[in-house]
Formats: sequence, structure tokens, C-alpha cells
Amino acid sequence: MTDRIVVDYLIYGNDAREIAEAISVEQSIEFPAELAEAWIQREVVGQIDSIGEQVDGATSVTISYDHRNAGGELPQLLNVLWGNVSMLRGVRLIDVSIPDVLTKKFSGPRFGVAGLRELFDVPKRALVGTALKPMGSSSADFARMASILATAGFDTIKDDHSLANQPWSMWRERVEVVSAAVREANEKTGNRCVYAPSLNLPADQIQDAAREAKSLGAGALMVLPGISGFDIMRTIAEDDSIALPMMGHPSMLGSLVVSQNEGIAHSVVYGTLMRLAGADISIFPNFSGRFAFTKDECRSIAKAARRPLGTLAPMWISPAGGMTIERLPEMLDFYGRDTAALVGGALHRGDLAANAVQMVEVMRG
Amino acid sequence: MTDRIVVDYLIYGNDAREIAEAISVEQSIEFPAELAEAWIQREVVGQIDSIGEQVDGATSVTISYDHRNAGGELPQLLNVLWGNVSMLRGVRLIDVSIPDVLTKKFSGPRFGVAGLRELFDVPKRALVGTALKPMGSSSADFARMASILATAGFDTIKDDHSLANQPWSMWRERVEVVSAAVREANEKTGNRCVYAPSLNLPADQIQDAAREAKSLGAGALMVLPGISGFDIMRTIAEDDSIALPMMGHPSMLGSLVVSQNEGIAHSVVYGTLMRLAGADISIFPNFSGRFAFTKDECRSIAKAARRPLGTLAPMWISPAGGMTIERLPEMLDFYGRDTAALVGGALHRGDLAANAVQMVEVMRG
Repeated sequence: MTDRIVVDYLIYGNDAREIAEAISVEQSIEFPAELAEAWIQREVVGQIDSIGEQVDGATSVTISYDHRNAGGELPQLLNVLWGNVSMLRGVRLIDVSIPDVLTKKFSGPRFGVAGLRELFDVPKRALVGTALKPMGSSSADFARMASILATAGFDTIKDDHSLANQPWSMWRERVEVVSAAVREANEKTGNRCVYAPSLNLPADQIQDAAREAKSLGAGALMVLPGISGFDIMRTIAEDDSIALPMMGHPSMLGSLVVSQNEGIAHSVVYGTLMRLAGADISIFPNFSGRFAFTKDECRSIAKAARRPLGTLAPMWISPAGGMTIERLPEMLDFYGRDTAALVGGALHRGDLAANAVQMVEVMRG
Repeated sequence: MTDRIVVDYLIYGNDAREIAEAISVEQSIEFPAELAEAWIQREVVGQIDSIGEQVDGATSVTISYDHRNAGGELPQLLNVLWGNVSMLRGVRLIDVSIPDVLTKKFSGPRFGVAGLRELFDVPKRALVGTALKPMGSSSADFARMASILATAGFDTIKDDHSLANQPWSMWRERVEVVSAAVREANEKTGNRCVYAPSLNLPADQIQDAAREAKSLGAGALMVLPGISGFDIMRTIAEDDSIALPMMGHPSMLGSLVVSQNEGIAHSVVYGTLMRLAGADISIFPNFSGRFAFTKDECRSIAKAARRPLGTLAPMWISPAGGMTIERLPEMLDFYGRDTAALVGGALHRGDLAANAVQMVEVMRG
């Protein structure tokens, strides 16, 4: 077992070796390699482990980096993986293997698959989730919706990712009244529904807001790492004084994945990075929804969420984005039961209460 | 003057109107529009202001959003601009006009072009900058380099963006000894050189580290918003107890711009967003360097750094990435004097002290 960070890239074009050499330097010392001391060239500069044959214009290249380059910190690990190479055309990061010496610096999902099964007392089935929508509704409106959804038997109710401090519903007020509505519903039904407010807030307020949300009764939290950064999610997820399930939302992360020949593989962004940063549930757009993710891309995310990663717990996946109750059985077939189903707007076609009950029934099989 | 957020997109493909309608909903209520209350459809959903003719497969579309959707906060403004649409293929954000009602929520560059001219006492010329490299050097090595560079007359010396807490040079030690070396050189020469440590640190430490850097004698700071988030840069830039010049580094932001048909225009990322978040100096890869930015893309960044944006100060641009002393005159011709030149590794070819003096001479013309 190597203790190096091993990164697989696809390099498009005919000068794969030259580009691989450039990457090995760019992502480490960013300095003319031949001018560096011999030991730096040997130990600190990235090493090209292999260069494959060109297939369909792309060459598979593996470069490894000394784990010390990442300094045991997630922001610098991201920098090693994708910092300046993000600005090159024709280079895509397709996989990464992170050594135990680094993964052990991170707690990963606090609950993970097993922990949320225990928290919700659902030994086998998939989780049932939804989002509070639409922006423009008042906090009282959202509380009424939450009450209906919690009563119907939903496990998780999250803020729509667009909810922040809009005049129609300010963050603190919303967290307070929705948390109360969910608590009251749980007291009546005996359910264990949790509300996850979005923490898409100013950077100097996020951590305090996470604590405040907990004190107001929120049972989970949602962070948008594409906007707030992966490391603030890790910070909150690892905070023992908070200790709530963490949802990672894909907002703005799309630009890391959508380009065919550049960016980072879906599995790494929505799987490995979300998990390293402590997401218990990683939300991403399901295939055939409103976005352009393919079946293979979605499958690769599920795999990365569940495969060994040091001693980090497996993570729930939440394929979303234009999902409907009708599509749930197909989704569960495809992804298996360690899936946090998320249906949003579609529940509002017709009667919310009736649709909510129907979705819970479908999910409970 | 509208008080709406006006966003110009290029939409690739033949169904521009359909996609424009989807975006107007996705980036606002993310909910079936026809199910929302009438006033929400009217006021909260984005409005399609215009759809142009298709040219070379792309249609120019303008959609505007109620400024209240952004709630006066940068993270939610980013969410409105690019949150979920980042996950669509064939949509590129090419420009944005932010109303005064929002720009006045942000301080922007604390120093800007005029402020740094005063700070460095350089009424006319471009700024002379470099970076401490390579990773693997000790803090004492970096202090020796900084002393040479400050003595030669450099205005700014920044950490290489890859420097964090590696065993060869830990952050606190480096900031302490490099700051001291620059201070001593300034005392001897009368120069006003500043050292900008990188703040690519764990999210819960960044703001304290900014204060600590100041107390240790750092004269400027550098944030990597592609990793740490734009809003933490804003938070630090707007902190009156810190009040140091802010450099924004482009690490990981490349994925927002490199795709031809997706992502966000260079001018918006390295110009408008950096400036809203309070960068005094925005670093980006110059054309014909190690990266693939074109002359036009670089010119557009310079323009966005300097054009009116509410009452926010104009920002310095720092075209970098494989620059050499030989290329400086061409660069200054192209960008003008409100440019923070940055030459890194090339100064180490031959004698650092002699090269440093030569670069300062070229820049002082």
C-alpha cells in the first residue's frame, strides 16, 4: 500500500508525455524542475507512474504525489489534485487514490449509511426526503408544508438550496418555525423526521449558524461546498458540539464535471470529495432528470460513495433534480436501498398531503 | 437603471427558448412555475428579457432576477448566477450586471488601484511582484529569498499558492520569518515591500490566520477562492481589524472558465466576482504562458477589473503563469500600467539577486 496520492488523468491530444511532465511540476513545486535541488526533484515533484496508449484521442496517465505535499489538510489536498491544472484545456482527472496516512486526518461521514439507519430506525429501506419550496413562500408557509411532510412519514426535509435570507423568509425565523413544526409532528406521530436548513450563508456566519440551527431544533444540516468550499463542510461535520447529519448539495459544482475533456470525474466530486468532507448524504442530479448526468456517471458516484476509503464510513447518495414518485421504483432498483430519495416540486402537483403519503408508501414498499 | 440582476447567457443548441425558460425557474424557485402563486411567478421567477438570433450554434439570452432573490449576500448571489445551471451542458454565463442595490452591500477592493499606488508610493508605474518558490524549501530559505527580493525593490512577494503546512515549511513559522526578513530589508532600503502569505488553510482557521499574519508583520494576504470560497475572501477583505491588501489566486477556478460551451466568462470570474469579493489584485494566467487563456479573454478580465461596478474601486490585474522578464514590456503595453506584474520561477534562472534587480529596472522603465 503506497502512501502517495495517486491521480489518474485523461490527457487529450498528442503530447501526453509533455503535458504529464508539466502537470507533475505544476501541481507540486510550480517551478522549473531542473532548477530545484535534487532531493526536491526526487521527493516533492510529482512522479509519472504510467502513461498508457492513446485511445480515441485520450491518453491515460497516472501521476503520484508525496502525501506531505498536502500537509494533512483538505484545502491543500484539493490544490494538489486540481489547483492550477484546472486552467489547462484537455486534462480531466478521472480517479484518485488517497493513502491512509491522509484519509486518517479526516473523520468523513459522522453517521454514514449505518449511522442514519440507526438514527431513523430504518434497518433496510431507502430514506424518504424532500425539499421546502418555492422561494417566495413565507416561513409560516414552509412550516405548514413541513408539518404535512413530517406527519406523512418523511425522514428528511431540507431547505431548497436557494433559500437563504430572502425578505419573504429570513434564515433564523425559518429555521425556528420549521424545526418547531417538525418537532410537533414527530411528537404526535412518533416519527423521527429531521429538518435540514441550508447553510448557504456568509462565510463568517456559517459555523455559528450551524450551532444555532442545532439549538433551534434542526435535526440535520445542508452545506453547498461549490459555493462555501468543501472544507467548511468538513469543519462543521467534524464539530462534536454540532454532531448532526450533513447533506452536501451540488450547487456550482457542475462546472467541475460537465466539460467532456476537462474537469474532474463525477465519482470524485460527488463521491470521494463529498465523503472526505464529511457528507452523510451527497445530493446530485439523477439521470433523465432536469440535468445531463448519464446512467454511468450516476452509477460511478454511487460506487465511490460506498467503496473503501481508508476507514471512512460509506455515504448515502441522493439522486435528485426533477424526480417523481413514478420514477422511485426504477431508482431504487438501480441504486439499491442505501439511497436517500428526494422528490421536490412534483409532490406539489395536486394535493401535497396525499402525494406525501403516497411517496412514503411507495418507499416503504 | 434597473435594480434587477441581469445575466447574459449563451445557449448552445436549437431549443434556446425552452432552456431559457428552464434556467429562469431553476435559478430562482426551482419548482414547477405554474404551481407557484401568481405573484411568485411574476416577481420571484427569473424573467427572460431577450432571446437573440442563433449564431454559430449559440443563442444569446438575457434573463433578469429580482435582486431580493440574492438576499444581499454573496453566497446566494453566486447561487442565483450559477448554482444549479452549472450542471447543464451547453449553457455559458457570459456577462452579468449587478444593480447598485446589491453592489452597495459589498465593500469591494479596500485599496484598489488608487489605494495601492498610495501604499507603495508609486504614482504611475506598474507593480513589481513575485512568489516564494519552490515547495520543499525551508522557511529560512524563503526568508533569504524574500530579503533579496525586497532589497531589489519588489513591491509584493507572495507565497507560492501551493505553500500551506508542509513539513519543510510550516505556515506560522514561514509567515514569521519571511515577514521579519521583508521588514528588515525595508528598514535598510526605505522600500515598502509587502509579503502576502497564502491563506489556503482549514476553513475554521482562515480568519484567525489572517489576523495572526497581520500581527506577525505580513503586509498583504492571498486567498484562493476556488478552494476556500469567494465569501471568505470578502469576509477578510472587509474586516477593518485586518485592513490589508488582498490578492485573489485562481487555483481551481479554471473549471469555471475552460469549457468552450459551459461555465462562466473569464471576465466575470477573474474580474467581477474577484472584485465583489474584495480582491485588490486578481491573479490569472496570462496568454502565451503555461495556460490556455487567449489574448481576448485576458483583455476582458482587465476590462472587468476597471469598468464601473457600483461604487466599487477598480482592481489591479496580475497576469501570471510562466512569465519572464523579457515579456514584461509587451505585457505592460497590452494591459497598461495598472498591472501587478508577477514573475516567479524565471527569476531563479541564474542569479536571483541580479535577476531581481533587472526586473525592477525594467519595470521602473
